[in-house]
Amino acid sequence: MTNAIAPTEVTWNEAGLVPAIVQRHGTGEVLMFAWMNSEALHLTLTTGRATYFSRSRGKLWVKGETSGHHQYVRSVSLDCDGDAVLVQVDQVGPACHTGAPSCFFTPLDTYQGEPK
Amino acid sequence: MTNAIAPTEVTWNEAGLVPAIVQRHGTGEVLMFAWMNSEALHLTLTTGRATYFSRSRGKLWVKGETSGHHQYVRSVSLDCDGDAVLVQVDQVGPACHTGAPSCFFTPLDTYQGEPK
Repeated sequence: MTNAIAPTEVTWNEAGLVPAIVQRHGTGEVLMFAWMNSEALHLTLTTGRATYFSRSRGKLWVKGETSGHHQYVRSVSLDCDGDAVLVQVDQVGPACHTGAPSCFFTPLDTYQGEPK
Repeated sequence: MTNAIAPTEVTWNEAGLVPAIVQRHGTGEVLMFAWMNSEALHLTLTTGRATYFSRSRGKLWVKGETSGHHQYVRSVSLDCDGDAVLVQVDQVGPACHTGAPSCFFTPLDTYQGEPK
Protein backbone atom coordinates (compact mmCIF):
# COMPACT_ATOMS: atom_id res chain seq x y z
CA MET A 1 0.00 0.00 0.00
CA THR A 2 1.44 3.40 -0.89
CA ASN A 3 2.05 6.04 1.76
CA ALA A 4 1.69 3.45 4.48
CA ILE A 5 3.67 4.16 7.63
CA ALA A 6 4.69 2.05 10.55
CA PRO A 7 2.37 2.10 13.58
CA THR A 8 5.35 3.23 15.64
CA GLU A 9 4.30 6.69 14.50
CA VAL A 10 1.18 6.46 16.62
CA THR A 11 1.03 8.90 19.51
CA TRP A 12 -0.09 6.79 22.47
CA ASN A 13 -1.82 8.46 25.40
CA GLU A 14 -0.53 8.36 28.98
CA ALA A 15 -2.13 4.91 29.41
CA GLY A 16 -0.48 3.56 26.25
CA LEU A 17 -3.73 3.62 24.28
CA VAL A 18 -5.06 5.22 21.12
CA PRO A 19 -8.75 5.88 20.38
CA ALA A 20 -10.22 3.82 17.55
CA ILE A 21 -13.21 4.91 15.48
CA VAL A 22 -14.86 1.96 13.79
CA GLN A 23 -16.71 2.54 10.55
CA ARG A 24 -18.60 0.20 8.26
CA HIS A 25 -16.81 -0.18 4.94
CA GLY A 26 -18.96 0.91 2.05
CA THR A 27 -21.71 2.80 3.84
CA GLY A 28 -19.55 4.90 6.17
CA GLU A 29 -21.81 4.19 9.15
CA VAL A 30 -19.91 4.78 12.40
CA LEU A 31 -20.37 1.57 14.38
CA MET A 32 -18.52 1.99 17.65
CA PHE A 33 -15.72 3.68 19.53
CA ALA A 34 -13.03 1.74 21.37
CA TRP A 35 -9.39 1.82 22.45
CA MET A 36 -6.28 -0.01 21.26
CA ASN A 37 -2.92 -0.59 22.86
CA SER A 38 0.08 -1.37 20.66
CA GLU A 39 -0.61 -5.10 20.72
CA ALA A 40 -4.27 -4.60 19.74
CA LEU A 41 -3.25 -2.38 16.84
CA HIS A 42 -0.57 -4.83 15.77
CA LEU A 43 -3.08 -7.71 15.81
CA THR A 44 -5.67 -5.62 13.97
CA LEU A 45 -3.13 -4.83 11.25
CA THR A 46 -1.72 -8.36 10.94
CA THR A 47 -4.68 -10.74 11.44
CA GLY A 48 -7.52 -9.03 9.57
CA ARG A 49 -9.72 -9.11 12.71
CA ALA A 50 -10.35 -5.91 14.67
CA THR A 51 -8.88 -6.24 18.15
CA TYR A 52 -9.23 -3.74 20.99
CA PHE A 53 -8.05 -3.20 24.53
CA SER A 54 -10.79 -3.33 27.15
CA ARG A 55 -10.06 -0.66 29.75
CA SER A 56 -12.62 -2.14 32.17
CA ARG A 57 -11.24 -5.68 31.91
CA GLY A 58 -7.62 -4.64 31.35
CA LYS A 59 -7.08 -7.05 28.50
CA LEU A 60 -7.20 -7.56 24.76
CA TRP A 61 -10.55 -8.16 23.17
CA VAL A 62 -10.95 -9.66 19.71
CA LYS A 63 -14.27 -8.26 18.56
CA GLY A 64 -16.65 -11.16 18.02
CA GLU A 65 -14.65 -13.77 19.94
CA THR A 66 -17.66 -14.51 22.14
CA SER A 67 -20.56 -13.01 20.14
CA GLY A 68 -19.44 -14.12 16.70
CA HIS A 69 -19.91 -10.52 15.58
CA HIS A 70 -16.46 -10.18 14.08
CA GLN A 71 -15.10 -7.17 12.30
CA TYR A 72 -13.03 -7.98 9.23
CA VAL A 73 -10.57 -5.18 8.67
CA ARG A 74 -10.59 -3.40 5.32
CA SER A 75 -8.34 -0.46 6.15
CA VAL A 76 -6.80 1.41 9.06
CA SER A 77 -5.85 5.09 8.88
CA LEU A 78 -4.05 7.38 11.29
CA ASP A 79 -5.06 11.00 11.76
CA CYS A 80 -2.85 14.05 11.12
CA ASP A 81 -1.33 14.17 14.59
CA GLY A 82 -1.18 10.40 15.03
CA ASP A 83 -3.40 10.19 18.08
CA ALA A 84 -6.50 8.51 16.66
CA VAL A 85 -7.12 5.65 14.23
CA LEU A 86 -10.01 5.02 11.86
CA VAL A 87 -10.78 1.34 11.24
CA GLN A 88 -12.97 0.40 8.30
CA VAL A 89 -14.52 -3.03 8.65
CA ASP A 90 -16.95 -5.54 7.27
CA GLN A 91 -19.16 -6.09 10.31
CA VAL A 92 -20.72 -9.50 10.96
CA GLY A 93 -24.09 -9.00 12.65
CA PRO A 94 -24.72 -6.04 14.96
CA ALA A 95 -21.73 -4.02 16.15
CA CYS A 96 -23.31 -3.07 19.49
CA HIS A 97 -23.58 -5.40 22.48
CA THR A 98 -27.23 -4.25 22.76
CA GLY A 99 -27.98 -5.83 19.39
CA ALA A 100 -28.22 -2.48 17.63
CA PRO A 101 -26.40 -2.18 14.29
CA SER A 102 -24.34 0.73 15.66
CA CYS A 103 -23.58 1.87 19.21
CA PHE A 104 -24.55 5.47 18.29
CA PHE A 105 -28.32 5.11 18.49
CA THR A 106 -29.18 7.82 21.03
CA PRO A 107 -29.78 11.25 19.48
CA LEU A 108 -29.25 14.39 21.55
CA ASP A 109 -31.46 17.45 21.02
CA THR A 110 -29.76 19.84 18.64
CA TYR A 111 -30.51 23.42 17.67
CA GLN A 112 -32.21 23.44 14.28
CA GLY A 113 -32.14 27.14 13.32
CA GLU A 114 -29.52 29.24 11.55
CA PRO A 115 -26.13 28.82 13.24
CA LYS A 116 -25.55 31.39 15.99
CA MET B 1 -36.62 15.09 18.20
CA THR B 2 -37.89 11.79 19.51
CA ASN B 3 -35.84 9.67 21.89
CA ALA B 4 -33.58 12.60 22.63
CA ILE B 5 -32.00 12.59 26.04
CA ALA B 6 -30.31 15.25 28.09
CA PRO B 7 -26.52 15.51 27.76
CA THR B 8 -26.34 15.01 31.53
CA GLU B 9 -26.42 11.32 30.60
CA VAL B 10 -22.94 11.62 29.12
CA THR B 11 -20.24 9.67 30.96
CA TRP B 12 -17.35 12.14 31.25
CA ASN B 13 -13.81 10.83 31.65
CA GLU B 14 -11.57 11.63 34.61
CA ALA B 15 -10.64 14.95 32.94
CA GLY B 16 -14.30 15.89 32.40
CA LEU B 17 -14.13 15.21 28.67
CA VAL B 18 -15.88 13.01 26.15
CA PRO B 19 -14.40 11.91 22.80
CA ALA B 20 -16.13 13.34 19.73
CA ILE B 21 -16.11 11.65 16.33
CA VAL B 22 -16.87 14.13 13.57
CA GLN B 23 -18.48 12.86 10.40
CA ARG B 24 -19.55 14.62 7.21
CA HIS B 25 -23.32 14.63 6.88
CA GLY B 26 -24.45 12.87 3.73
CA THR B 27 -21.26 11.06 2.71
CA GLY B 28 -20.34 9.56 6.09
CA GLU B 29 -16.68 10.55 5.69
CA VAL B 30 -14.99 10.68 9.10
CA LEU B 31 -13.38 14.11 9.24
CA MET B 32 -11.64 14.39 12.60
CA PHE B 33 -11.49 13.30 16.19
CA ALA B 34 -11.61 15.78 19.08
CA TRP B 35 -12.70 16.17 22.68
CA MET B 36 -15.55 18.06 24.33
CA ASN B 37 -16.13 19.20 27.88
CA SER B 38 -19.67 19.85 29.06
CA GLU B 39 -19.57 23.48 27.92
CA ALA B 40 -18.33 22.50 24.44
CA LEU B 41 -21.10 19.93 24.11
CA HIS B 42 -23.69 22.40 25.35
CA LEU B 43 -22.52 25.02 22.82
CA THR B 44 -22.44 22.43 20.03
CA LEU B 45 -26.02 21.43 20.82
CA THR B 46 -27.38 24.97 21.24
CA THR B 47 -25.54 27.13 18.68
CA GLY B 48 -25.37 24.89 15.60
CA ARG B 49 -21.57 25.27 15.41
CA ALA B 50 -19.31 22.41 16.48
CA THR B 51 -17.26 23.42 19.50
CA TYR B 52 -14.49 21.41 21.15
CA PHE B 53 -12.16 21.56 24.10
CA SER B 54 -8.48 21.89 23.20
CA ARG B 55 -6.47 19.76 25.62
CA SER B 56 -3.19 21.39 24.54
CA ARG B 57 -4.47 24.93 24.97
CA GLY B 58 -6.84 24.14 27.84
CA LYS B 59 -9.73 26.10 26.38
CA LEU B 60 -12.82 25.98 24.20
CA TRP B 61 -12.34 26.00 20.47
CA VAL B 62 -15.14 26.88 18.06
CA LYS B 63 -14.13 25.00 14.92
CA GLY B 64 -13.51 27.56 12.18
CA GLU B 65 -13.28 30.61 14.42
CA THR B 66 -9.85 31.46 12.98
CA SER B 67 -9.78 29.37 9.76
CA GLY B 68 -13.35 30.00 8.68
CA HIS B 69 -13.71 26.23 8.29
CA HIS B 70 -16.82 25.97 10.39
CA GLN B 71 -18.78 22.83 11.07
CA TYR B 72 -22.53 23.32 11.03
CA VAL B 73 -24.11 20.68 13.23
CA ARG B 74 -26.71 18.39 11.72
CA SER B 75 -27.00 15.83 14.51
CA VAL B 76 -25.28 14.61 17.65
CA SER B 77 -25.63 11.06 18.95
CA LEU B 78 -24.41 9.35 22.10
CA ASP B 79 -23.14 5.78 22.12
CA CYS B 80 -24.60 2.88 24.10
CA ASP B 81 -22.55 3.47 27.24
CA GLY B 82 -22.61 7.27 26.97
CA ASP B 83 -18.86 7.76 26.73
CA ALA B 84 -18.50 8.91 23.11
CA VAL B 85 -20.42 11.27 20.83
CA LEU B 86 -20.86 11.25 17.08
CA VAL B 87 -21.29 14.69 15.50
CA GLN B 88 -22.60 14.93 11.96
CA VAL B 89 -21.76 18.23 10.30
CA ASP B 90 -21.80 20.24 7.13
CA GLN B 91 -18.10 21.08 6.82
CA VAL B 92 -17.01 24.40 5.32
CA GLY B 93 -13.69 23.89 3.50
CA PRO B 94 -11.17 21.29 4.70
CA ALA B 95 -11.64 19.77 8.15
CA CYS B 96 -7.92 19.26 8.77
CA HIS B 97 -5.50 22.02 9.75
CA THR B 98 -3.14 20.60 7.05
CA GLY B 99 -5.67 21.52 4.37
CA ALA B 100 -6.72 17.92 3.81
CA PRO B 101 -10.47 17.27 3.57
CA SER B 102 -10.21 14.80 6.49
CA CYS B 103 -7.56 14.33 9.20
CA PHE B 104 -7.47 10.56 8.49
CA PHE B 105 -5.27 10.61 5.41
CA THR B 106 -2.44 8.28 6.49
CA PRO B 107 -3.09 4.60 5.74
CA LEU B 108 -1.39 1.90 7.80
CA ASP B 109 -0.32 -1.37 6.19
CA THR B 110 -3.01 -3.97 6.73
CA TYR B 111 -3.11 -7.70 6.17
CA GLN B 112 -4.99 -8.42 2.96
CA GLY B 113 -5.48 -12.21 3.12
CA GLU B 114 -8.21 -14.31 4.67
CA PRO B 115 -8.71 -13.32 8.33
CA LYS B 116 -6.54 -15.35 10.71
